[in-house]
Amino acid sequence: MEIAKSLQRVRSSYIREILAVASDPNIISLAGGLPAEETFPLSLFKPTLERLSNMPEAFQYGATDGYAPLLNHLTHLYSLPETHKLLVTTGSQQGLDLIARAYINPGDSVVMETPSYLGAMQVFEFSQANIIPVRQTETGPDLCALQEVFEQQLPKLFYAVPDFHNPTGVCWSLETRKKVAELCRQYEVTLIEDIPYRELRFSGNNMSLVSEFCPEHSIVLRSFSKIASPGLRLGVVSGPRQYIDPLVKVKQGADLHTSVPVQALLLGLLQDLRFEEHIDLIRTLYRSRYEALLTALTEQLSDSCTTRPVDGGMFVWVTVPECDTLALAKCLLKQGVAIVPSTVFYPQSVEVPAAMRLNFTNAHPNALIEAVMRIKRVLQNGNYMNQIT
Amino acid sequence: MEIAKSLQRVRSSYIREILAVASDPNIISLAGGLPAEETFPLSLFKPTLERLSNMPEAFQYGATDGYAPLLNHLTHLYSLPETHKLLVTTGSQQGLDLIARAYINPGDSVVMETPSYLGAMQVFEFSQANIIPVRQTETGPDLCALQEVFEQQLPKLFYAVPDFHNPTGVCWSLETRKKVAELCRQYEVTLIEDIPYRELRFSGNNMSLVSEFCPEHSIVLRSFSKIASPGLRLGVVSGPRQYIDPLVKVKQGADLHTSVPVQALLLGLLQDLRFEEHIDLIRTLYRSRYEALLTALTEQLSDSCTTRPVDGGMFVWVTVPECDTLALAKCLLKQGVAIVPSTVFYPQSVEVPAAMRLNFTNAHPNALIEAVMRIKRVLQNGNYMNQIT
Repeated sequence: MEIAKSLQRVRSSYIREILAVASDPNIISLAGGLPAEETFPLSLFKPTLERLSNMPEAFQYGATDGYAPLLNHLTHLYSLPETHKLLVTTGSQQGLDLIARAYINPGDSVVMETPSYLGAMQVFEFSQANIIPVRQTETGPDLCALQEVFEQQLPKLFYAVPDFHNPTGVCWSLETRKKVAELCRQYEVTLIEDIPYRELRFSGNNMSLVSEFCPEHSIVLRSFSKIASPGLRLGVVSGPRQYIDPLVKVKQGADLHTSVPVQALLLGLLQDLRFEEHIDLIRTLYRSRYEALLTALTEQLSDSCTTRPVDGGMFVWVTVPECDTLALAKCLLKQGVAIVPSTVFYPQSVEVPAAMRLNFTNAHPNALIEAVMRIKRVLQNGNYMNQIT
Repeated sequence: MEIAKSLQRVRSSYIREILAVASDPNIISLAGGLPAEETFPLSLFKPTLERLSNMPEAFQYGATDGYAPLLNHLTHLYSLPETHKLLVTTGSQQGLDLIARAYINPGDSVVMETPSYLGAMQVFEFSQANIIPVRQTETGPDLCALQEVFEQQLPKLFYAVPDFHNPTGVCWSLETRKKVAELCRQYEVTLIEDIPYRELRFSGNNMSLVSEFCPEHSIVLRSFSKIASPGLRLGVVSGPRQYIDPLVKVKQGADLHTSVPVQALLLGLLQDLRFEEHIDLIRTLYRSRYEALLTALTEQLSDSCTTRPVDGGMFVWVTVPECDTLALAKCLLKQGVAIVPSTVFYPQSVEVPAAMRLNFTNAHPNALIEAVMRIKRVLQNGNYMNQIT
């Protein structure tokens, strides 16, 4: 049976595939985007886990838009205006998929910063969108290029990760946020603001959401994978009612609704007085790991590589000497380090600078330091330069 | 922002929408396909719920195909051959959606029995399939019509619910099963065998799966909504490896993977020695409710309506005097009974016989009897005949 034509052009996830290999205990994995398991709030989940066996209503079919007590809590938490609504999704990845399915006709234009989140590229490739790349600078998207693209190509959506971008870790400046919002309003482009890392800031000050400056032209994707647990698969989409209603219709056919017991589990966590303290612990842990990695990179690799400092999130972006980064990644894997090469973060037609994404949240400082030593040896040895992938 | 063209032709779920209304305590709902809440195995879930707060690994990102210990258990339980594999899905509804997304190009032909499961029609409408209806008889699909359609229209898929069909409750005869499998092999059509109600047999003998007669031409969709809990959102798809791999690729973009803690919860239930006893309790309860409903229908409505007896499942199909069944459903709702009219189970172009689907699993016998009395009054009164919908 032949697969659908739309699927034929979708690449597999290099990251999901490397994760299997990277679970080998001899390999230090800086490849995934995995939170540290020791941060999972198991003791805060415990009271709800125990209560669930007396909550038969949480095991019945639920409403497609979400578990009502959770929706009420989040509506209040996000100060959602009357004109807006929420939809609980099976991870924020589903939110993105629902948006593409509800709004993208084959050939419709979608703008993305490059490099960009692989999972978003997969979704837009599958919906047969025309993906228009806009170069990212240190403060966000190149605004001149963005305006030109908005004006000339009339895109439907602009997909963005303004807080601690995946893969670069860039956090947009306030000026960029205001300007992007203005451009979305002016050219009637809907901003898809994906903020899975927003709560993971460990230095600097919080910034306004971009969507705060263009609430009627935005859909916001929130994830609970980084502050609760990724295994739960919980995200939430918010935006103007008329933007969210079609997503609910698509979700009916996609999975009816998201698991109710895990929604109850999340609500218990969010209502726990220790929740803020839990987030602080995550931030402190991630800062210490980031600092260990940055110090090692600076000390060991600053002659050949450039690391962009970050104020939060899970990743740093390290430019390496010009090479085939896929060959480099394979060599590194043989030497016991998993990283993600820059190629996987670019649409297929775009020129790719030599770089790698390093995750710092899921390895102990000593392992991060050892990983940098291994990377240094491979770069010095240079064997990867002769490999053809 | 205009919605995608593919979504414009998808109707909303009458059933999901009526469920909100039907939660009014004055309305007896025979509309949904809800299991009885008192059957949810909460005491069997309890040990795993308590164990989960010591299982951090269940809260980390998981594999797209499913939680390995659950996959191992199910592979053994279903005696899956080496050539086949499993994929855990966010409810079997997701399994169906993944199949349509992985295999259907706009215009590809998909055969369905009529009447048919609304959720499947939504999925195939959204994928812009050419839906070919084949009439259902008392023993399964009209085999002559099926052969003609296979021969002339070269469909890619045949979607079927052979065990206690939704909405009719029909269970295919053994001869029909063998013949359908033969036709699928002969014409290279892939059978999608959807069996959410299979375990809910309360009389007669178990039948072989249709796919047992054509294992290389079938994908099987199993649901845990009826034997564990629908709120969990768990299903599993199985079939030849080369048929399942593309579904895994689509699922990566759709939601990465299904919630791991609920997969662990299901595994705990399936491994519990009291699980078989739990299923027996469900069967006994549903038989008693079915018998109460059938007796009331026979005693009160046999002059105007025909009820087809069933050996299991959750529904009976009652043909009513020729009328606009949507108008009838609205009149019934005003008189405090929710049912689903036959129109919603047919593709838009097909002639619809006057009938209604009644669910018997989610109301007490007295409520079922009262519902039949209310239906009788509305049918006798006849007001619905003058309504225009």
